[in-house]
Amino acid sequence: MARASRSADLTQVTEWNDGTTTRKDDFLAAEEPLEIRIGENPLSVTMRTPGHDVELAAGFLFTEGLVQRREQIVALENAANDDDGKRGNVVRADVVSEALPDFDKLRRHFFAASSCGICGKASIDAVRSRLLRTPNSEFRVKPELIVSLPDVLRSAQDVFERTGGLHAAALFDSGGKLLIVREDIGRHNAVDKVVGWALLNGRIPLSDSVLLVSGRGGFEIIQKATVAGIPVVASVSAPSSLAVQLARELRLTLIGFLRGKRFVVYAGEERLAKG
Amino acid sequence: MARASRSADLTQVTEWNDGTTTRKDDFLAAEEPLEIRIGENPLSVTMRTPGHDVELAAGFLFTEGLVQRREQIVALENAANDDDGKRGNVVRADVVSEALPDFDKLRRHFFAASSCGICGKASIDAVRSRLLRTPNSEFRVKPELIVSLPDVLRSAQDVFERTGGLHAAALFDSGGKLLIVREDIGRHNAVDKVVGWALLNGRIPLSDSVLLVSGRGGFEIIQKATVAGIPVVASVSAPSSLAVQLARELRLTLIGFLRGKRFVVYAGEERLAKG
Repeated sequence: MARASRSADLTQVTEWNDGTTTRKDDFLAAEEPLEIRIGENPLSVTMRTPGHDVELAAGFLFTEGLVQRREQIVALENAANDDDGKRGNVVRADVVSEALPDFDKLRRHFFAASSCGICGKASIDAVRSRLLRTPNSEFRVKPELIVSLPDVLRSAQDVFERTGGLHAAALFDSGGKLLIVREDIGRHNAVDKVVGWALLNGRIPLSDSVLLVSGRGGFEIIQKATVAGIPVVASVSAPSSLAVQLARELRLTLIGFLRGKRFVVYAGEERLAKG
Repeated sequence: MARASRSADLTQVTEWNDGTTTRKDDFLAAEEPLEIRIGENPLSVTMRTPGHDVELAAGFLFTEGLVQRREQIVALENAANDDDGKRGNVVRADVVSEALPDFDKLRRHFFAASSCGICGKASIDAVRSRLLRTPNSEFRVKPELIVSLPDVLRSAQDVFERTGGLHAAALFDSGGKLLIVREDIGRHNAVDKVVGWALLNGRIPLSDSVLLVSGRGGFEIIQKATVAGIPVVASVSAPSSLAVQLARELRLTLIGFLRGKRFVVYAGEERLAKG
């Protein structure tokens, strides 16, 4: 398969359109496994879209609770793959000793498959117990600004338009200025890349920002946003019941179905300033 | 939050529409953790939409390669939750001794977060090595039949219309008859529920069927379809590069962007019969 960039592959496909078939070139969202290691110990394998892997690893370590501060990550680097030195599908992290995971505790749940970003966790309560921080209660954002964000995101996205296969996560400041946008085939990878960028650039907590995600607002997105201190999460699609429950418990503002001049507020509407 | 059904919750939300706010009732896709145990050993925690949990567990055990045949599952039941006997967020499986997972081997990768359904796996090669079976090369399906499937699925879906938050997986026979449809907040959970249904009903391999998924056709969907012997996978959205690569290697037919009277064939077009 011809490689068009790290995040999109070019390939030949057949289009069938009402009885007519056409051969054509098409871009595909790239998907490759990334292994995150702590020292020499494999910690996680995730399917991701290559690019910004160090940010992804930093965000993962932070939003999954392995490190609480930037300083706990001593080193973080793209390591060569064991099998194929060119691929770079491994990121190696060194962390301070107090941030070393309790391998015995984690080991209890070792086989996991999920689309949730919290697989491998003993229980939902374990996640909840980490998240007692309440997002910035003073932060306010205007509804008119919220409805403008998807257009800003769209004009900043490059791969999505070509492949139709990537999720995006974007961070905006209170004035609606786009701070960062990251794309990935996995929704929470896109969020981890954004949060990892913030962590590596000394911007945590993100107390005055809005996170916009292109897909659904699931439980894991709320979890990751809260760890990063983000007070407002907006998505273009529906949130889950647990996402709403968690957002209400944590007093985070959760917006869904953000389309055109309309959106639905599921939690924390006090942060929406009157026009 | 009021409970409308096991798979949808009813809640009060605020709609903002071009300056006007309205309080209204809204359905949310239910999302709760499900723990799968082998005997007393926790095997996996996945966030799923409650309902068809036994099928989900059966499908997971089968498509993740823990069991190869229905008979290897000796018992499979919804167990009471330790904390709360009423919830039923635990499924307990007993398997024959030769199907007991190699806990030591699995333990190497114990912490995982991913949207891929293969997290916790040592490498992508480990997945590939299990999938040497080639899907039925004799199977043929007409393009005109393929384009009719989304409408059949839509009319069979109930929760999706209400919440906009669930993925669907549906199995059709070669004549376009809908065999089964399952919904879940996680795409691969929906597929596992369908495959689990087939396994528990003695319908494996599914050599003469088409799998339609409502979201993207990712690597893990191809993996699960192949384990179940499904020769044709269609999705309404874009596949990833790895999904296309795997489908081509395995000679599975992969269709994407199935919308209206149009679709794109990424692999295995020989199964599309001329009108």
